[in-house]
Amino acid sequence: MAIESSPTFSESSIDRSMILWIMKRIGNPNISIRLWNGDEFPVTDAHPVACMEFRERRAVFELLRSPSLGFGECYTDGLIEIRGDMLAFANEITRAITDKNDSGYYGPKIRSLLHAIRVNSLNRSRKNVRHHYDLGNDFYRLWLDERMVYTCAYYETRAATLAEAQVAKLDHVCRKLQLRPGQKVIEAGCGWGALAIHMAEHYGVDVIAYNNSREQVAFARERAATKNLDGRVTFVEDDYRNVDQRCDAFVSVGMLEHVGLASFRTLGALVKRCLKPEGFGLIHSIGRSFPDRTDPWIVKHIFPGGHIPSMSEMMRVFEPHKFSILDVENLRPHYARTCASWLQNFEAVADEVADMYDEEFVRMWRVYLAGSSAGFQSGTLQLYQVVFTPRGNNKVPWTREYQYAGTSGKR
Amino acid sequence: MAIESSPTFSESSIDRSMILWIMKRIGNPNISIRLWNGDEFPVTDAHPVACMEFRERRAVFELLRSPSLGFGECYTDGLIEIRGDMLAFANEITRAITDKNDSGYYGPKIRSLLHAIRVNSLNRSRKNVRHHYDLGNDFYRLWLDERMVYTCAYYETRAATLAEAQVAKLDHVCRKLQLRPGQKVIEAGCGWGALAIHMAEHYGVDVIAYNNSREQVAFARERAATKNLDGRVTFVEDDYRNVDQRCDAFVSVGMLEHVGLASFRTLGALVKRCLKPEGFGLIHSIGRSFPDRTDPWIVKHIFPGGHIPSMSEMMRVFEPHKFSILDVENLRPHYARTCASWLQNFEAVADEVADMYDEEFVRMWRVYLAGSSAGFQSGTLQLYQVVFTPRGNNKVPWTREYQYAGTSGKR
Repeated sequence: MAIESSPTFSESSIDRSMILWIMKRIGNPNISIRLWNGDEFPVTDAHPVACMEFRERRAVFELLRSPSLGFGECYTDGLIEIRGDMLAFANEITRAITDKNDSGYYGPKIRSLLHAIRVNSLNRSRKNVRHHYDLGNDFYRLWLDERMVYTCAYYETRAATLAEAQVAKLDHVCRKLQLRPGQKVIEAGCGWGALAIHMAEHYGVDVIAYNNSREQVAFARERAATKNLDGRVTFVEDDYRNVDQRCDAFVSVGMLEHVGLASFRTLGALVKRCLKPEGFGLIHSIGRSFPDRTDPWIVKHIFPGGHIPSMSEMMRVFEPHKFSILDVENLRPHYARTCASWLQNFEAVADEVADMYDEEFVRMWRVYLAGSSAGFQSGTLQLYQVVFTPRGNNKVPWTREYQYAGTSGKR
Repeated sequence: MAIESSPTFSESSIDRSMILWIMKRIGNPNISIRLWNGDEFPVTDAHPVACMEFRERRAVFELLRSPSLGFGECYTDGLIEIRGDMLAFANEITRAITDKNDSGYYGPKIRSLLHAIRVNSLNRSRKNVRHHYDLGNDFYRLWLDERMVYTCAYYETRAATLAEAQVAKLDHVCRKLQLRPGQKVIEAGCGWGALAIHMAEHYGVDVIAYNNSREQVAFARERAATKNLDGRVTFVEDDYRNVDQRCDAFVSVGMLEHVGLASFRTLGALVKRCLKPEGFGLIHSIGRSFPDRTDPWIVKHIFPGGHIPSMSEMMRVFEPHKFSILDVENLRPHYARTCASWLQNFEAVADEVADMYDEEFVRMWRVYLAGSSAGFQSGTLQLYQVVFTPRGNNKVPWTREYQYAGTSGKR
């Protein structure tokens, strides 16, 4: 009997060693591991926050081959299961990777280990339309707030709901732009039109908003018409690069991430061309604390072609055109919470989503939303709001107190 | 008679053409020109804000040879005189140069034309000690505020005096650092100790402040002793690079400008080493909206070895060490006003200063202070306050409202 069980024991021991080696490389997260044969063991002495189950040996090899792609694809396909809270798991893995990287022993390649669960972006690019915006309004309506805002919210108080925090974000952006009635605003990348409509409705400005997604533009136009704002807000189904008007304010929320570094300077040139000398601009974007590549799983499955910039990289939009940076705010913790809210909403309708698409789709989105939240929670991802103006504009606010003095300008 | 006057007329005409050519290159400022022979003519049709008098032909050649050095040195030596308001003149010249450069026809070399009057820095470096800090406390006491703060003030209201605005700046910095009693703060480059003393006195923290100027440290120690704070504030006469303690907050106001770009990463490494994982840092520095060289006159006469960084350049302090940028505020208009206040105070004691040194010294400082104010007024220079924390610190303020809710934490 001992002879018969010996190979099994030996194989299991090798599997265990390989997995523990992978875990060591990602900073020994406080999780437990469960194998396809029922064996279970912890990675560290600490209480595990969740259990990562390898349902087939193949998953181990997939993780060894490409940790990021391996985890994301194995989880999607059901070869890996997470027992316990998915967000807690994602946070713990990302924390471990971040701490490990802080020691400085490993380069960008190891930084990307299990990147799938510290996902990079919540925004679209040309190619990710298939996975993202072509999914249709009905899908997003299930778990976004009623205004369909698919960018970082701003929780003015910790008690705020997602819907309240999205309105607060719209107001925060409007205040920073110091909108005044009658001004003309250009918005590049307007999603379902929430900000454009909010600016026109509550700040009395005229808005031209660009978006190259037909379905989103149709939705936004309908919303504007319902509010009798179709004379004030023009939704243009076109690329932002074709903006050709002059404006008092330029705003772009959650578009820079998919513009691509090589086009940053072009975007700046466009803003330079359209923004009046005393105008203000605001660019809101996911960022990084240092330059790094986009995670391979994200590139392949969620968000091709984009780039999450560090602050110095972001400056390629502004410095060639001599814009004066007035104000940068980092809303990182707000995006961790926003993504967690989305995940919670998403889980509540997971069955419905599975009926619309399939179970793999639900699992892929779960990794994406949990990983995004963890990315912000760990500091792998940042959220920068940058306010700028043409150099030499002296009609700038004397202090930033106006940003915190109620909803100034709102009506 | 016509034959005799002809050469004079011709010479004058050549001088005039040369000067108008120089003026065209700097964007045709609205000034008038007066020659050594009494001839006077305007540069543009607009009402001239001041008159630039060439007292000798040599000054024209000096300006042609090196506009920046030429203007600064000729003014100092009395070969050029400004009739009318010096600050208005500096602002107009700088405005013209800035507008000209915005057209994009000329490169950095022409950007530096008459740089002397859009001077780059108000801070020291190793070599400028001769012109700056070795001038002694008695000199600065004549025209700085009573706390001897030699960096950008913060005018919370437009009615604030320089002294009030300097205190407001100290509080603004303390609020941004979220100081709590008992914390340890490291200050790199502490000048005459105003911030260090203010932090200990009003926020209950212990401060170690570095400065390599013996006279400033002696002054600061005496001030601290007078307030019975010598147990709370330690002034170390040493280079900031020798900081070897751990701290809850790291602050540096007006030092980065003379650190030199090549040492930015080293400065960041030092902060990384001493700042606790949940600590906050603030670096306050003159900046630019795009990378450019330091003006030759400044390099030669005022401020050798330094570099005024653009925002992307400033990131070399933070990104290699993965600091998370939390908040950037641009106080540019405040520094224009601060410099103008200093100039006003300086002019009031100009005779006294001339007795201490000489008339050339007074003229050099006049160009420096007026040029600095004009540099900030025109947007050639910016003033960035950057708040940062180690990546992954989740004990960050939820919003920035605390910065504007009275003097929180102050006692």
